[in-house]
Amino acid sequence: MAPKYLTGDSQAINDFLDRFDVFLFDCDGVLWSGDIVFDGTVETLEMLRNKGKQVVFVTNNSTKSRLDYKKKLDKLGIPATREEVFSSSFSAAVYISRILNLPPNKRKVFVLGETGIEQELQAENIPFIGATDPAYRRDVSAEDYNKIAAGDPSLLDPEVGAVLVGLDFHINYLKISLAYHYIRRGALFLATNIDSTLPNAGTLFPGAGTISAPLIRMLGGTEPISLGKPSPEMMVAVEGKFKFNRQRACMVGDRLDTDIRFGIEGGLGGTLGVLTGVSSKDDFEAATLPPMAYVDKLGDLLGGA
Amino acid sequence: MAPKYLTGDSQAINDFLDRFDVFLFDCDGVLWSGDIVFDGTVETLEMLRNKGKQVVFVTNNSTKSRLDYKKKLDKLGIPATREEVFSSSFSAAVYISRILNLPPNKRKVFVLGETGIEQELQAENIPFIGATDPAYRRDVSAEDYNKIAAGDPSLLDPEVGAVLVGLDFHINYLKISLAYHYIRRGALFLATNIDSTLPNAGTLFPGAGTISAPLIRMLGGTEPISLGKPSPEMMVAVEGKFKFNRQRACMVGDRLDTDIRFGIEGGLGGTLGVLTGVSSKDDFEAATLPPMAYVDKLGDLLGGA
Repeated sequence: MAPKYLTGDSQAINDFLDRFDVFLFDCDGVLWSGDIVFDGTVETLEMLRNKGKQVVFVTNNSTKSRLDYKKKLDKLGIPATREEVFSSSFSAAVYISRILNLPPNKRKVFVLGETGIEQELQAENIPFIGATDPAYRRDVSAEDYNKIAAGDPSLLDPEVGAVLVGLDFHINYLKISLAYHYIRRGALFLATNIDSTLPNAGTLFPGAGTISAPLIRMLGGTEPISLGKPSPEMMVAVEGKFKFNRQRACMVGDRLDTDIRFGIEGGLGGTLGVLTGVSSKDDFEAATLPPMAYVDKLGDLLGGA
Repeated sequence: MAPKYLTGDSQAINDFLDRFDVFLFDCDGVLWSGDIVFDGTVETLEMLRNKGKQVVFVTNNSTKSRLDYKKKLDKLGIPATREEVFSSSFSAAVYISRILNLPPNKRKVFVLGETGIEQELQAENIPFIGATDPAYRRDVSAEDYNKIAAGDPSLLDPEVGAVLVGLDFHINYLKISLAYHYIRRGALFLATNIDSTLPNAGTLFPGAGTISAPLIRMLGGTEPISLGKPSPEMMVAVEGKFKFNRQRACMVGDRLDTDIRFGIEGGLGGTLGVLTGVSSKDDFEAATLPPMAYVDKLGDLLGGA
């Protein structure tokens, strides 16, 4: 079904808003771009809150914790609480602690990633190694090869039951080698998200998907379980926290392949596209899985008031 | 056609050897394993040379130059000259200098790799940046993101016309970012080889294919031109150097998917499998593209004398 274009149609906007109690927002490309907040973003969020709607900020950025992200929202002048932020690092921590049930002697997680993941794992009391530990920021020595081959516990902790891969700005040969050997020895292969690129400074840089790519290659094509958008596991985690009726929830995003897909495959009652990011009007109109409705920009929702 | 089993059949061995003037050898798994040279390796090579055969050692290991590799052969007690060694780093250098014809203002190569590639590029007078230059062994700064986005020539050399990816034990986020932006700006995407793993210490570590994997991911699936086995480009380079008749040449190897495939798809007159490496008797007998013949071990060829 073709998506409904809402901009300028106050009756249609009101009808649309009335269908939902919860709005999940993608951030970059929807609320802001880079460091520039779009006109009407703050007022639209205020309008939704005034109508009693729950707002949730859903981000695949695993390098930041929810608190880091709340600080970013503060800095941009967008009022938010930590509780309203749902990041892929938090999603991964919730998945590991509440769904996976690792055996008692396999509870540790070997992490490729940054402090955002560490903070969320700590908040869920999940023991981990790797991540930002400087001991892993070094070359592989001849001795390491033999120790890894022998499964020496000084390099391969026998209590590791899962490898969690997020965006790691300090990826290196040693970490890839260790992650591979943990997985070969039976550890689960998890990823906070698998985005191939990360938008920054108006262009693209390597995303979390580039950190799992070498491992997928070594494993002959085996993909990680991804806990970020558009994975249904992330929707399970979001729902587990906010306890909403999926039929009364709407995902708002700029990308067909992550945001809109996440809302549709996650079984939400609605999806809303915006044209301030990656996907265009033509993309939305021609899509096999289009959003339920779309607006030129988020602030156009104020036209329904 | 089922491969002929030669071990113990002196007439069949003689007939087989008589068909070829040139023998191309894979090394690890054929001549030796790790640091152990198989019984009969040295004598078999001597026998072939005494019969006037040309022997060539063909390796995908790009971290070593031909001279480094000759030194490795010396250390293992296998007589060889630098001229008999054909590595994927040399193959890549030959391909760039003699086949690619980069425009005069795009002659530089940005390298992800080690000293083996540097030495072979230098020998072919190809200007390059990256590789083991310590200036690239650092974190990405906030300033770098802006400079890369702006195409600042202090980080993105406008004369770079090709990116060459080999095994890089010092891979990092900065190098992946730069390689990606060079390719986006039009540089060719080349790889010395795309092996997913590297055997070491009796187990597997990340191979050159894991260094190109993040880039392939960022580029939406675009693969590099590979200059190693089993790529036909490597056969073109080998033939360009040794000027042999492909019908009178035989590839000897332990792996169906690289060595035997390389010989068959490269149009050689014959292929010989050995059982001292990865592939088994059953693999050879059941293969869609089997070797022409096989022996238990290379030294069994002495049984034809």
